[in-house]
Amino acid sequence: MKTAIDLALYLKTHAQHIEARLDELIPETQEPYKRLFQAARYSLFSGGKRIRPIFALAACQDLEGPLEHALTPVCTLEMIHTYSMIHDDLPCMDNDDFRRGKPTLHKAFPEGHALLAADYLLTYAFEILTEAPDLTSDQKIQLIALLAKQAGGHGMIAGQVLDIEAETQPVDSEGLERIHRCKTGALLSAAVEFGGILAKAPESTLETLRCFGSEIGLAFQIVDDILDVTASEQKHGRKLSSDIQNSKKTYVTLLGLEGSKKAAQDQLEKALDQLDQLPHHALLLSELSRYIIERKL
Amino acid sequence: MKTAIDLALYLKTHAQHIEARLDELIPETQEPYKRLFQAARYSLFSGGKRIRPIFALAACQDLEGPLEHALTPVCTLEMIHTYSMIHDDLPCMDNDDFRRGKPTLHKAFPEGHALLAADYLLTYAFEILTEAPDLTSDQKIQLIALLAKQAGGHGMIAGQVLDIEAETQPVDSEGLERIHRCKTGALLSAAVEFGGILAKAPESTLETLRCFGSEIGLAFQIVDDILDVTASEQKHGRKLSSDIQNSKKTYVTLLGLEGSKKAAQDQLEKALDQLDQLPHHALLLSELSRYIIERKL
Repeated sequence: MKTAIDLALYLKTHAQHIEARLDELIPETQEPYKRLFQAARYSLFSGGKRIRPIFALAACQDLEGPLEHALTPVCTLEMIHTYSMIHDDLPCMDNDDFRRGKPTLHKAFPEGHALLAADYLLTYAFEILTEAPDLTSDQKIQLIALLAKQAGGHGMIAGQVLDIEAETQPVDSEGLERIHRCKTGALLSAAVEFGGILAKAPESTLETLRCFGSEIGLAFQIVDDILDVTASEQKHGRKLSSDIQNSKKTYVTLLGLEGSKKAAQDQLEKALDQLDQLPHHALLLSELSRYIIERKL
Repeated sequence: MKTAIDLALYLKTHAQHIEARLDELIPETQEPYKRLFQAARYSLFSGGKRIRPIFALAACQDLEGPLEHALTPVCTLEMIHTYSMIHDDLPCMDNDDFRRGKPTLHKAFPEGHALLAADYLLTYAFEILTEAPDLTSDQKIQLIALLAKQAGGHGMIAGQVLDIEAETQPVDSEGLERIHRCKTGALLSAAVEFGGILAKAPESTLETLRCFGSEIGLAFQIVDDILDVTASEQKHGRKLSSDIQNSKKTYVTLLGLEGSKKAAQDQLEKALDQLDQLPHHALLLSELSRYIIERKL
């Protein structure tokens, strides 16, 4: 299906809107504990692609929801994502020195500040949702419940635990899928469901979005594993050997490079199948997904 | 003013109710990531006195609120307190090996598990509040907003940042008060205000509770500093030299032992003055405060 949407421009424009709102939500300050916010901003504004909030906005738009009410709430998805990256990079987790070509937060700031800046982003995400203008009380509670669940002990955090335990235990492709359905899929699933809640979609639509998000999250993870191998350290900006140093299984180590490319394409189609039930097949979500996956394969 | 309440029994009974509910909220599980919950339970059930949830229940009872609706929400205060202790003990923060006579979580479990168990407790606290039975949507949002604010970047986390920065900077008594108003006072203030919200108290009462909580939190902190010096390591179960090793200023190093005892007593009276505006002077809150402070001086 051809589309008239300029997807590169869509991604760029929406990333700019999200960054401008994040900048308003977490401004520079002269508080005596200003280093906390400086640390949070260091990680928050370090070149992320804002995929999660953009997917939330796209879902909202596909369902004809009010985009202007969605911008603040979807920023919380980027805060949660950033907090999880900061904690993942710490010495007691992946022990990464670089992310996106820059020193990780605990290398640029004292490690205690990195720990606390992430805690702050997690906590502040929930505060923002209680105050989001233009939402009903029930929408706020739905968003908070969803975010806490998907970022929580049976969602993203479960994935992080499985991930560090996989360093010392054998992992097959089923185990790897479980890790990434939790670690990456859970928050992406929350992101697209955010869009549905913000558009006041019925439960059946939310269920569809939830499934799509989980499937597309897995596709993104496979592509990430491929990029970890194919991109040079300089270009990708990440210490390439970190996963190998940590003896971590990736899709590439399990399926090989070509096998992983095929798996990513299959996983993309599986995700897009979910969208068939939505009006216009959720054109934005599906076109963005295809664009992001296929230009990297 | 004499009271007929057996305060020791009150503290014991309510701690038992809170622990039973926490046990239901975070049960043992056979999930493949069960070590996450084992780690959380290790810290959650390691002999805490449950002061924050008990103060929330006492405030609710003083205002004739429904205690049976309060038990689940107040448990989130203990989760937040426990998360903050776990992160505070980590090597990049206070680097404590023992707490309450037991190895700290990162000594009993891998450090990554400790980090994530705390993240889980923080996140789960918000999830529980969205699901708390018998509360109105507005009560839920009020509780979530309050907890996120007081535990957040201008509350408890600000205190933690100021605390680690105080290791390398001179701190006077004003600076020390600022640290502890954030680090200890903010969550205690949230606790007593929780009681007010659960009792559907008007804003003026919430404001009074908030001020009382902040003042009594400071009194507790002074007593804690005194105990750190007077209690033997075995009895108190904490590596006594940790604050000194970290060159931390405490009330005892600033005011001396006798000066600190007087400061704690003065601070208690300042807190209790706030309660004069409440019905029956908030008998439970005031009696519990006096009991907890005075038996330790």
